[in-house]
Amino acid sequence: MSFNTILNFFQPRDRVFYGLFEKVVETNKVMAIYLNEFVNISDFEEREAVLKKIENLEHQNDENTHQIFTELGRNFITPFDREDIHYLASALDDIADYIYASAKKINLYKVDPHDKGIHKMAELIEQGTEAIRISVLELRTMKNIGIITTALVKVNSLENQADEVYDMSIERLFATENDAKEVMKKREIFHALETATDKCEDAANVIESIIIKYA
Amino acid sequence: MSFNTILNFFQPRDRVFYGLFEKVVETNKVMAIYLNEFVNISDFEEREAVLKKIENLEHQNDENTHQIFTELGRNFITPFDREDIHYLASALDDIADYIYASAKKINLYKVDPHDKGIHKMAELIEQGTEAIRISVLELRTMKNIGIITTALVKVNSLENQADEVYDMSIERLFATENDAKEVMKKREIFHALETATDKCEDAANVIESIIIKYA
Amino acid sequence: MSFNTILNFFQPRDRVFYGLFEKVVETNKVMAIYLNEFVNISDFEEREAVLKKIENLEHQNDENTHQIFTELGRNFITPFDREDIHYLASALDDIADYIYASAKKINLYKVDPHDKGIHKMAELIEQGTEAIRISVLELRTMKNIGIITTALVKVNSLENQADEVYDMSIERLFATENDAKEVMKKREIFHALETATDKCEDAANVIESIIIKYA
Repeated sequence: MSFNTILNFFQPRDRVFYGLFEKVVETNKVMAIYLNEFVNISDFEEREAVLKKIENLEHQNDENTHQIFTELGRNFITPFDREDIHYLASALDDIADYIYASAKKINLYKVDPHDKGIHKMAELIEQGTEAIRISVLELRTMKNIGIITTALVKVNSLENQADEVYDMSIERLFATENDAKEVMKKREIFHALETATDKCEDAANVIESIIIKYA
Repeated sequence: MSFNTILNFFQPRDRVFYGLFEKVVETNKVMAIYLNEFVNISDFEEREAVLKKIENLEHQNDENTHQIFTELGRNFITPFDREDIHYLASALDDIADYIYASAKKINLYKVDPHDKGIHKMAELIEQGTEAIRISVLELRTMKNIGIITTALVKVNSLENQADEVYDMSIERLFATENDAKEVMKKREIFHALETATDKCEDAANVIESIIIKYA
Repeated sequence: MSFNTILNFFQPRDRVFYGLFEKVVETNKVMAIYLNEFVNISDFEEREAVLKKIENLEHQNDENTHQIFTELGRNFITPFDREDIHYLASALDDIADYIYASAKKINLYKVDPHDKGIHKMAELIEQGTEAIRISVLELRTMKNIGIITTALVKVNSLENQADEVYDMSIERLFATENDAKEVMKKREIFHALETATDKCEDAANVIESIIIKYA
């Protein structure tokens, strides 16, 4: 890969991006683990404590994302197309936003998270953030394209599953919940959860376009 | 057009984009025709059969869109700006997504599609996909800019009409429908229909920016 | 700034962007002032007259935004990255769209705008459009980066405040409003208001990335 050879002369300024992206995907993974914990807790106050941890991680991610954009403005040399860095950073930041929003809305609206659709969605998000984490860690060397490809195929499959869980959950909600306000609250939560998986897919699409160009 | 003369040397790699875009706009048009058929069928099961056809076409479009993005990664030479190809492919794919989503939600929520707002929206979407189809077919030669311009003006007018139909439909829904869950279901369907026309407008805006640069 | 020295040779074609952006941010500011007026008027018909003014300004902004995109297609030389011009124009146009949508929905759904959340949001939007106006006016000379930075920090703070007002308003709405349709109408209005502040933040992010590159 002669392009990478050339890039090595410009070390380490452009390498800063890998480190920042790695921080972001690790944080997203931890947030998803906490989300899973959160939706399985019955007590409101206990959930509030986990929500606080998710919120703090979301702020960390905001700062790391902001630093990626700042470096993008400063750095003439970037390890992949500027546009791809921009899109990937945005998608990863959105994953964090929607994980946090899902948990926040559950406590804000005092919705009971013991619902098989909510539980399933949280699991899919955790698996999605793990697959994204794996593929981003491989970007630094680009040596294991197979590992990246497998992870990306998984993200797409998870997103399809999330779509189905969403549709079934909303259908069930309309069919069984008579309190219209409750329908609204839960639908908003399902929507935030489902959007988190959409954003995993957006991130996967950018990673795919990066490996097509450089692999 | 000397730029095109230069491009001719690189035939046919960059020409692949025209063929893919043409497939996508033809499929969108057929999907819109089926949507129109769908909203005029009273029987749920009969609608289900048409929904299946729409779903299959949506999958075809996903594959063609995916191929456009893959070619964009591989192809150094593109017939217009990479960014424009990216935006246009995304907007056209979104049109298909929202046509499918509109039909799917109608059956999923068991909403009766016999509503003058829904019927009008489906007609506007069909006209919009036809105007987009016409203008995309002209991109290959760029010889009939007038035809493109007329089609784009039409898309903008259709989107304005859809906005009005949407506002009136939602106002009427709130004023006449007492079942709040029914309001939610129909509002979601109107929203999906209206977004399909928004995406036609997005596609028209990209096509306009392409012809400004190359015509 | 040697880059600007070079740019001066290409005057005034690329300077047209500053004038257009300035028109747009001035118009956005006036729209926000009218929105504030609008939400404090009790009489429907009086509000309708102010709504008409907001609508006219929104159309003006549409035309100016369209002209920015047209110039972007025609102009080879631009004062900052084409992508940044594109994003900034879109974000500023979205601010206008959501200000207009907020006011329109209030009258369309016949919602009483005397609500402390609505009033607070309208104030935050006015302050946001003023901060954006100040920073865009400084782009022409780039001589007072401190003024821009202060304004952008303010926009971010306003957006955070708007998020909190939104969350509290929706929580209160669910807790106190028993008419589910009323909840839906107001939630849609709060959402439009909150999105206007999001779009101010999007505009601020683009301006920040511009000054990182050129300052």
